[in-house]
Amino acid sequence: MVNTLLLPELREMLTEGNVAELGEFCTALNAGRTAEFMEGLGDDEAWQVLRHAEVARRAEIFSHFPYERQVSLLGRQDAQEIAELLEEMASDDRVDLLQDLADERVDEILPLLPVADRRDIQRLRAYPDGTAGALMTTEMAKLDEKLTVRQALDELASQSEFLETIYYLFIVGEHDQLRGVVSARQLVSALRSPETPLRDLVETDVVTALTTEDQESVAAKVERFNLLAIPVVDEARHLVGIITHDDIIDVVREELNADAQQMAAISPLDSDFLTVNLFTLSWKRGGWLAILFFTALFTAFALKFYELELNKYAWLAWFIPLIISSGGNSGSQSATLVITGMTSGSLQLRNWRTVMTRELLVSMMLGGFVAASGMLVAMMVAPSVRDALVIPITLFFVVICGCFCGASLPMVFKRLGLDPALMSNPFVAGIVDILGIVIYLNVARLLLN
Amino acid sequence: MVNTLLLPELREMLTEGNVAELGEFCTALNAGRTAEFMEGLGDDEAWQVLRHAEVARRAEIFSHFPYERQVSLLGRQDAQEIAELLEEMASDDRVDLLQDLADERVDEILPLLPVADRRDIQRLRAYPDGTAGALMTTEMAKLDEKLTVRQALDELASQSEFLETIYYLFIVGEHDQLRGVVSARQLVSALRSPETPLRDLVETDVVTALTTEDQESVAAKVERFNLLAIPVVDEARHLVGIITHDDIIDVVREELNADAQQMAAISPLDSDFLTVNLFTLSWKRGGWLAILFFTALFTAFALKFYELELNKYAWLAWFIPLIISSGGNSGSQSATLVITGMTSGSLQLRNWRTVMTRELLVSMMLGGFVAASGMLVAMMVAPSVRDALVIPITLFFVVICGCFCGASLPMVFKRLGLDPALMSNPFVAGIVDILGIVIYLNVARLLLN
Repeated sequence: MVNTLLLPELREMLTEGNVAELGEFCTALNAGRTAEFMEGLGDDEAWQVLRHAEVARRAEIFSHFPYERQVSLLGRQDAQEIAELLEEMASDDRVDLLQDLADERVDEILPLLPVADRRDIQRLRAYPDGTAGALMTTEMAKLDEKLTVRQALDELASQSEFLETIYYLFIVGEHDQLRGVVSARQLVSALRSPETPLRDLVETDVVTALTTEDQESVAAKVERFNLLAIPVVDEARHLVGIITHDDIIDVVREELNADAQQMAAISPLDSDFLTVNLFTLSWKRGGWLAILFFTALFTAFALKFYELELNKYAWLAWFIPLIISSGGNSGSQSATLVITGMTSGSLQLRNWRTVMTRELLVSMMLGGFVAASGMLVAMMVAPSVRDALVIPITLFFVVICGCFCGASLPMVFKRLGLDPALMSNPFVAGIVDILGIVIYLNVARLLLN
Repeated sequence: MVNTLLLPELREMLTEGNVAELGEFCTALNAGRTAEFMEGLGDDEAWQVLRHAEVARRAEIFSHFPYERQVSLLGRQDAQEIAELLEEMASDDRVDLLQDLADERVDEILPLLPVADRRDIQRLRAYPDGTAGALMTTEMAKLDEKLTVRQALDELASQSEFLETIYYLFIVGEHDQLRGVVSARQLVSALRSPETPLRDLVETDVVTALTTEDQESVAAKVERFNLLAIPVVDEARHLVGIITHDDIIDVVREELNADAQQMAAISPLDSDFLTVNLFTLSWKRGGWLAILFFTALFTAFALKFYELELNKYAWLAWFIPLIISSGGNSGSQSATLVITGMTSGSLQLRNWRTVMTRELLVSMMLGGFVAASGMLVAMMVAPSVRDALVIPITLFFVVICGCFCGASLPMVFKRLGLDPALMSNPFVAGIVDILGIVIYLNVARLLLN
């Protein structure tokens, strides 16, 4: 929902050039809320309003704009003003934005930034997407291990204007080698004996991420150890950045959405569904559709193989969709449970015996239930009770078979080192379709002939 | 993977009763890592090791144990020792654990806790699951607005032993009424003029959660405003607790997994797949399977309706699974894209025209592609080219119809105020199955007769 509450007032202030009120609007609320009230404005109007905030505040409000608006403002507004804004932004966010601008525009903006910022941007841009290096920010509270508690607080007071957060203070030795971490809480506790050296407070056993580490592995560490931020180090354990909790939430969301998409046979999209190129989208969907199509082809051949039975007992064909959808649905239930269990860590590969035993029991209950419903229906259609029995018997085995494939395939994929979410649901459905037809027509052959 | 690196040493220390080394083991590493090294131990062994840590440290290590082990230790070890441990734990975590213990056991432990903790526990237990109240912790840095910066730091130094974190300092007036927030960063910056009153630093526009607010809505606020913690207030704006970022990651994960399970037609499970009761699981799956079964029944009636065509052109039956699975797969791709887009916030209901236009274009490309493949196959089976044309024409329309239903149904559900993930995928598949058969046999009727 776009918040339109203050739109008329804002537009009036702009037309009147009411500097005082616009300045007041930019500072009165918290930055997130300020950005929210500006959602209904056009890009140019929003920029006009922003100019009435001092530059640090401007960057803060800007960072709460929707990402698309951020990119479009960066692409079109005055390069000098953009450079001033970028100077104030978090180092990881500005690099992400620059990646999405046209190269010529980046070449125009970069020279307007101070050397230090420019170097920082160039260094961060060098890390490939999806690694800890690309996710990290370089603004962190970094303190020399030789300082005392009192000195550390003084140092922090001078650093803190440039820092996003100071919940962890990273203690470094020579050449920024990471020695350990002191929490802001510990530092404040230690205020009672201000001459204590930091060395005495430092927790040296720190969970770190390597610059080249995959972002999912970093997110897993942060979740496992309940961290607010994780330090990023290079091979020689030099502290080069930190990754904060808000970026981790994004990674978790991205990862689970990618899983959901893979489960539905879509190669994960790199950008939003609404903005991704249509040919890219067709390609990412069409590839899997083609594979599934050729799997499904086997069902046609299987049915052709049982031509005789189908011609003799025409009513058998009416139940084909019912039978394969029962198998497919129970299979995708099992696959989803196993996949979400594995990604959330509550289910390990070594539990496979438990999983399969439980699935067998559940599938027998489900199969029995579906079979009973099927019997009622078949009685209305089939010429005799004996003939009708084909339907429930088939349904019973098809549901068991669906659950079995659904539960085992993702574990097999995982064991082979593949992503368990990899197109599991439709793949399971495809296999169960074929097995379902084979079961169906063999049961029919046995009972009817 | 269970970390077994130190298992033999730990067991040896236990048999020898080596107090010094066990004490050293409990303190040398960070608490998360210590817990990791104890994973291979039995519950009783783990408890024996833990007793060698002082109680605050013990609670910290304990909090990193897998949840099941925490419950089982709480259920079986000495009640007095358990009470001491609970006293040190975060207030939200211990309430969760107590909810999972037998009532008699809780009655045994609670009287051993100090009155203040007991009251705190009873108050938190009163909030229903899934609300902000049930998620919050009551340990937070709370400072009176009348304090100066220097006084605030002194006060913090004395409070901080009992606090998890102090990144936000909540400023309260009379009766704990929330006035605003000061970040630890701001407080440290202000150290240069230590007589500044907190009142001058406080940010009064604070995003808050109500105790009764739904946890998903709280998570959305935290994500939107990039908060480290959100204060929880009652109707009269009294500060009663905070919810921290780590609980928010859990909520996001839980919510996305519930969506994934609903998309596969499973009512969301309250507990882990491995531990949930088998009858509960069968019930949660069976209910939806039954609904889907009765939807699928219509396919049988539809096919019966076209009995004549099916008897005359027996080869038509062979393609039934292929056609309905093509529709189902493209439909579940669309549904998943729309659902994940809506839950991640990148797609809004007001974008529906864009979504449908894009889907129409993509589905025509996909349909054309699947139709071309289908033509090749049909040529091998059908008696004439004209007859074979039934297959590609059907496939083309079925894929378009699948994408259309897949993209629109979740948006319709959302518009009706229902959860868009509510069984959309199998529901879409069911509808597309029926439509697919109707399209198929009408195309056949037109072309063949």
